[in-house]
Amino acid sequence: MPQTYSYAAQHASDALKPYRFERRAPGADDVQIDILYCGVCHSDLHTVRNEWHNTLYPSVPGHEIVGKVTAVGANVKKFKVGDLAGVGCMVDSCQHCASCAEGEEQYCENGFTGTYNGPVFGGENTFGGYSDHIVVKEKFVLRIAPTDNLAAVAPLLCAGITTYSPLAHWKVGPGKKVGVVGLGGLGHMAVKIAHAMGAHVVLFTTSPNKREDGLRLGADEVIVSKDERQMATQANQLDFILNTVAAPHNLDPFLALLKRDGTMTLVGAPDSPHPSPTVFNLIFKRRSLAGSLIGGIEETQEMLDFCDKHGIVSDIELIAIQGINEAYERMLKGDVKYRFVIDIATLKQEAAA
Amino acid sequence: MPQTYSYAAQHASDALKPYRFERRAPGADDVQIDILYCGVCHSDLHTVRNEWHNTLYPSVPGHEIVGKVTAVGANVKKFKVGDLAGVGCMVDSCQHCASCAEGEEQYCENGFTGTYNGPVFGGENTFGGYSDHIVVKEKFVLRIAPTDNLAAVAPLLCAGITTYSPLAHWKVGPGKKVGVVGLGGLGHMAVKIAHAMGAHVVLFTTSPNKREDGLRLGADEVIVSKDERQMATQANQLDFILNTVAAPHNLDPFLALLKRDGTMTLVGAPDSPHPSPTVFNLIFKRRSLAGSLIGGIEETQEMLDFCDKHGIVSDIELIAIQGINEAYERMLKGDVKYRFVIDIATLKQEAAA
Repeated sequence: MPQTYSYAAQHASDALKPYRFERRAPGADDVQIDILYCGVCHSDLHTVRNEWHNTLYPSVPGHEIVGKVTAVGANVKKFKVGDLAGVGCMVDSCQHCASCAEGEEQYCENGFTGTYNGPVFGGENTFGGYSDHIVVKEKFVLRIAPTDNLAAVAPLLCAGITTYSPLAHWKVGPGKKVGVVGLGGLGHMAVKIAHAMGAHVVLFTTSPNKREDGLRLGADEVIVSKDERQMATQANQLDFILNTVAAPHNLDPFLALLKRDGTMTLVGAPDSPHPSPTVFNLIFKRRSLAGSLIGGIEETQEMLDFCDKHGIVSDIELIAIQGINEAYERMLKGDVKYRFVIDIATLKQEAAA
Repeated sequence: MPQTYSYAAQHASDALKPYRFERRAPGADDVQIDILYCGVCHSDLHTVRNEWHNTLYPSVPGHEIVGKVTAVGANVKKFKVGDLAGVGCMVDSCQHCASCAEGEEQYCENGFTGTYNGPVFGGENTFGGYSDHIVVKEKFVLRIAPTDNLAAVAPLLCAGITTYSPLAHWKVGPGKKVGVVGLGGLGHMAVKIAHAMGAHVVLFTTSPNKREDGLRLGADEVIVSKDERQMATQANQLDFILNTVAAPHNLDPFLALLKRDGTMTLVGAPDSPHPSPTVFNLIFKRRSLAGSLIGGIEETQEMLDFCDKHGIVSDIELIAIQGINEAYERMLKGDVKYRFVIDIATLKQEAAA
């Protein structure tokens, strides 16, 4: 069983530090991947600090994984040694419930297995992509098209699919006016993807100085959400809003921007509740407030192919694994444009030293 | 201009008392209706007591109106003198916005005119059905099929359409498992209508002693919502929930009963907010929390025809207008099965005395 070198938290209050463990040898249905890059998701931070009160330690985060196939099991058909491959938020699901049957493994009735901290739904703990390699069931491994910017593809595996899936589910496209709330890791992907889908995109941000960046990324309009006058210009205008902000905030000013029958979908999970939305805001235009969780494996492949076709990658800042704890502090301050990605070569060099 | 005899509140703290005013003589597009029965809706009480902070006084409530046509204008085509007719929550709308064009006048972009307290959206005050007659634009008058139980038809004009519209919009029918929360004026109509639509109906009530009545009205199952064990049997089971409870309550135990992609729609408007729903409950099954407001005029006619075809009326307690203030107190205690309806003959007798 191959030794794995990784960075892990041993307790909720600990910094991430080097940690060695063993992964399984690839079975008949498995793909073994030499990890090259791993994106840094806010969920990583929530998990290592036990902010969702469900963390098993040691905790090795990372679910925006890209790398190269180094071994395949006897039954593996889609991958061969040397192929590029990706792994997102899931590494298994029950495969026999209605949701799995419909390719919606993220809503598996029996609980999917997360790429890290998997036993939320039962089973043994799983260790994620802040590590030198990973072994994953073929069904949960994604094909990655050849690229000269592989590091910037990594965040598509979580930030990309988390925004693509609801945009596709609620039929965003030409003729639709779509709001994106928040310009962070998720928000900047949502702007790029909604724009590529052909929608008119309105970015809502609390920071007036993000205006130029919003327009560059593909927004048609940028609205400073603290400015009531600017907000009023959008009242009853939007077909759909993707709200990417995880911090608790007042949802009503955004619900009021939806047209009749419009939906605002939340993809951020706050650690304390948002203020309760006003029921009148829902009733008077038959509006909906919804939630959405990542996306299915087939849809993740569809998203990767869509992004490849439209030349979409994440805007990233490449970091060494030794800078991960500092990166977390900067992420908490919103000081990243727009996703940290770990160059796993820095991890391997440390392991070999 | 014909004198009208009615019951009105002059202030938020007043009981309803006799009040005379003048209605317009019917114009070319108007229908004049001799009111026979008027249902008592919780909105009447909210309005006369100014609980929504928008009441104009004097306030003559009542928007579940049935009666007989006594005069029609020159352009009126659908009604002749002697016909039965009904009036619901609206007596006008802008007629040129997208919602009006689609027959969704209740979502009129410029604001519909309520049957009473109309100037919420501008215009002169309007006086409702606690009165001996009313004059309404033909477009907003509903056809009522001949019946030997006209009094029990009255509540369909608000309680009926408020529940029928969302049940139809979210495609309740055979093969669907539908929850109804609350067994009051709205809830008992929702149970009857959802049952007639062919759905499997689960009634949720806080009162174990409403079980027999729930089954009699058409529920397939009755769940006591305070009983966690009973609630657990419904987890992830329901395609749609119509929540008719206006009092602030925890929405999470009900959201948790929805299947993936299920929706819970609120039709009650609390005067203080519900506790904030847990975002995880929305995200983990892509559930929606929505609102719905009455229904359009064409849809109200469709609902009346549907109820006529299926023999659906409201379960009512007929009262004299002189008992309206006591009826309000009983309504506040939930002491009515399931809708008070005023026999307007008692108002006319008083006027003539």
